[in-house]
Amino acid sequence: MGLFTKDIKTMDDLFVHTLRDIYYAEKQIAKNLPTMIDKATNPELQKGFEKHLVETEGHIERLEEVFRMHGTEAKGVNCPAIDGILEEADEVVGEVEDKQVLDAAVIAAAQAVEHYEITRYGTLIAWAKELGRSDCAQLLQQNLDEEKATDKKLTELAESRVNLRAA
Amino acid sequence: MGLFTKDIKTMDDLFVHTLRDIYYAEKQIAKNLPTMIDKATNPELQKGFEKHLVETEGHIERLEEVFRMHGTEAKGVNCPAIDGILEEADEVVGEVEDKQVLDAAVIAAAQAVEHYEITRYGTLIAWAKELGRSDCAQLLQQNLDEEKATDKKLTELAESRVNLRAA
Repeated sequence: MGLFTKDIKTMDDLFVHTLRDIYYAEKQIAKNLPTMIDKATNPELQKGFEKHLVETEGHIERLEEVFRMHGTEAKGVNCPAIDGILEEADEVVGEVEDKQVLDAAVIAAAQAVEHYEITRYGTLIAWAKELGRSDCAQLLQQNLDEEKATDKKLTELAESRVNLRAA
Repeated sequence: MGLFTKDIKTMDDLFVHTLRDIYYAEKQIAKNLPTMIDKATNPELQKGFEKHLVETEGHIERLEEVFRMHGTEAKGVNCPAIDGILEEADEVVGEVEDKQVLDAAVIAAAQAVEHYEITRYGTLIAWAKELGRSDCAQLLQQNLDEEKATDKKLTELAESRVNLRAA
């Protein structure tokens, strides 16, 4: 059973709750990425998602290490935010036929996912430092750096899609 | 009636669909901000949210102007992403008693909202330019700049909360 929101009394409780939120989110993303790989038509975009799936599995392991360091059991809590972001991605991406339009929609959906992770990791790192857990902060920073790099790569792919189209 | 996802055939359809998505999101945020103002205990945080509520109303008007420029009726589409983000914010913020912890939770929730808007405006601006609508891109850029400034301000408030606590 997760930490209920009514049990959040201290900054440490809030940290653990949010850690469980991103843990659940990363697992949902790992489940969802094969669909994105399948939907994307640009080979470079597909390759990018394949690489990010491997990274995401690494993020989950790093989060499990943070739980261990903290002395808390690794478990997820419901995260309506990532559920909503992924539901919207499925809806928009599900029905587009034109390959160029589909890739544009897939990239935008993936960037919404990345931005959710970026904001959560940013918050968690600040709270870990506040709680004197720079060891946890350091691991979380590695996940954040990879999410930021993925977001940047997606922007580059979006730009190259436009250039390809203009050519 | 909104544009169904099965009606997304061109980049212009995708642009309009996403414009309707952020239009709905901004309206939900405007509805939700008074609760955030009410929940926040730090006066500077409250003042920040009050300012952002006024800005959000301006964003809605600017989006209506973009719809007009584009020749499309201003209307929203369901946006499960912002619904999920706001639902999660309500859940986490709803039950925390300690003022410091509550403010930390409120700031984190607000930053998740800002990041959603930042990613959507970033995408919309790129697509507006691709569609040769730099006039629409320019208005959307103004919204994006204000969202980024709000996110930065929230990070500063989070840091000042920690410093206050350490003092």
